[in-house]
Amino acid sequence: MRAIRMSADGKNPEVLDQRWLPHRTVFVELESVAEAAEAIRSMWVRGAPLIGVTAAYGMALAMRVNPHDHGLENADAMLRSTRPTAVNLMWALDRVKAALLPQPPEAREAAAWALAHTIRDEDAAMCKAIGEHGADIFADLLDKKRARGADSPLHVLTHCNTGWLATADYGTALSAIYVAHERGLPVHVWVDETRPRNQGASLTMWELQERGVPCTLIADNAGGHLMQHGQVDVCIVGADRVTRTGDAANKIGTYLKALAAQDNGVPFYVAMPSSTVDWDVRDGARDIDIENRAAREVTHMRGKTADGDVVDVQITADDADALNPAFDVTPARLLTGLITERGVCDASEKGLTGQFPER
Amino acid sequence: MRAIRMSADGKNPEVLDQRWLPHRTVFVELESVAEAAEAIRSMWVRGAPLIGVTAAYGMALAMRVNPHDHGLENADAMLRSTRPTAVNLMWALDRVKAALLPQPPEAREAAAWALAHTIRDEDAAMCKAIGEHGADIFADLLDKKRARGADSPLHVLTHCNTGWLATADYGTALSAIYVAHERGLPVHVWVDETRPRNQGASLTMWELQERGVPCTLIADNAGGHLMQHGQVDVCIVGADRVTRTGDAANKIGTYLKALAAQDNGVPFYVAMPSSTVDWDVRDGARDIDIENRAAREVTHMRGKTADGDVVDVQITADDADALNPAFDVTPARLLTGLITERGVCDASEKGLTGQFPER
Repeated sequence: MRAIRMSADGKNPEVLDQRWLPHRTVFVELESVAEAAEAIRSMWVRGAPLIGVTAAYGMALAMRVNPHDHGLENADAMLRSTRPTAVNLMWALDRVKAALLPQPPEAREAAAWALAHTIRDEDAAMCKAIGEHGADIFADLLDKKRARGADSPLHVLTHCNTGWLATADYGTALSAIYVAHERGLPVHVWVDETRPRNQGASLTMWELQERGVPCTLIADNAGGHLMQHGQVDVCIVGADRVTRTGDAANKIGTYLKALAAQDNGVPFYVAMPSSTVDWDVRDGARDIDIENRAAREVTHMRGKTADGDVVDVQITADDADALNPAFDVTPARLLTGLITERGVCDASEKGLTGQFPER
Repeated sequence: MRAIRMSADGKNPEVLDQRWLPHRTVFVELESVAEAAEAIRSMWVRGAPLIGVTAAYGMALAMRVNPHDHGLENADAMLRSTRPTAVNLMWALDRVKAALLPQPPEAREAAAWALAHTIRDEDAAMCKAIGEHGADIFADLLDKKRARGADSPLHVLTHCNTGWLATADYGTALSAIYVAHERGLPVHVWVDETRPRNQGASLTMWELQERGVPCTLIADNAGGHLMQHGQVDVCIVGADRVTRTGDAANKIGTYLKALAAQDNGVPFYVAMPSSTVDWDVRDGARDIDIENRAAREVTHMRGKTADGDVVDVQITADDADALNPAFDVTPARLLTGLITERGVCDASEKGLTGQFPER
């Protein structure tokens, strides 16, 4: 299963409507650019890479109906407005537009489909490359664990959702786990539930279970205790933004796990495509603005009732105030390394520019 | 409002049924020892001190019906079996039994009521004393904050529920906040929601709101970020068990906050009655057994629907595995100090035995 695929007749893309996970698995066929825009805007799909891929397919759907410049510009504007801060969305639309505009209208639909497939396949290949590098690290750690006489699987702790649900396939941090699993390495994943939006409980657990990877849900509070007791061999997370100096902004709570990892000598890796690096920022804690999201995400929670209905429930008194910072910044000093599509490097300017000398 | 009180006619104790907080405020009159036992067993009341007080009142109810030795022993056995690991429960029952047995049956009911009131009042007084010492610390920190030119309230972060809902009054860690608030010090509380049982979201927020203390709910993941950005002036938590050397076992997740406090230079205090100290244990992380509770507490959550019904919802897929360690141990090295009924001391053997030389 993948988060986006072509319909059985090969005509239209279908996306997994992630709003109902893990309770319902519903694929929705996208028949028009308006439906693709709605899928992005209403978060049937989420995850920066997957949004970009979905937008590219949206352009192909638009070209089927109106491949003229006017149709192309309209479709681009419609898709671009759906998630205004999503960098991958803009990147994908720029790329599609630049490829289609020079072509005659009658050639555009075929070119758009081909390019959407390419963007999808490139994303999956980049994710796979990240996973290969991460799995190499896991293999080393497992060798060392075996050398110490331990015969349990490699226990990997992760936070939030960074898997195939957020990308064309594999994911970023979870890609290392999937590749290791494909190689036959015994891995077991501790999944932080990732309050307040529960992406770990509702998405990561589900997608790991779908692919048969052993996994156990824990409260976000539990990771430090598990590390104290030798139950975590390595932590791996994704990132929303990494500074030139290796500070990593990621889902709120990542910083606390990195502190616990350092306190207990557990390696802590951030896995992300190099497009995540903001080469202009040096001090993450100071210079990365952290979005405060709606209080309702903290005071309410979605779940399935005993009757099977999926409902939102309120966990506080009616008039409770709440603050909901969505991300935090983990200083580079707490990171063992960064894993990109090119390999593993130190979380430092020297490490990053060594791997990306063109920067 | 208090968690236990006498009925309007002064005849029976009434307890706040905490299972429905914060959605419903229901006091239940306890008319028999069997009802008192049920209130403890089914967690209408929780919190070690409050359980002890409730058991003492249960003994008084029993003496009203059958003050003979047989009745006394039966009531003691019934209450003792409700929460077999609650030390305060055993302590209160031992005390009541020792006081009543030497007396003639006709004197026992009056003696039992008097002793129950005494146990209640002693607990409230001890909690108040803890609060006074804690509020002194807050006053100092506020002076320093003012000296730095900051005019915002003292921002206090806390975890779990340690307030008047868990004791006869005031609480332990929250007592410092209540006493500071009574003194007119401007305090604002960041309340960790405290997954998986949400005691922060459902109990601490509610009881602070009831007493008019400004408070804001945050996800457990958020505290590190707030500390990084200077939004937390001090952390204060309770403890379930403190070693002779000052290690503190407390609700799962406490350790992560203590790490963040240390990383950001934020003072971190544990407030608890000296009865919490286990004088025989030296290494908390190694020697304190941590209870793993039901997975369902992680995979399900209680809340109020839009229709006002209070229901449990499932937040994972049906077959998700979960681990639920209930407590973690914060090493003494991360603690700024311990606050007991006798004052503030270093979290160390020297600090504790200095304050309790009889040990």
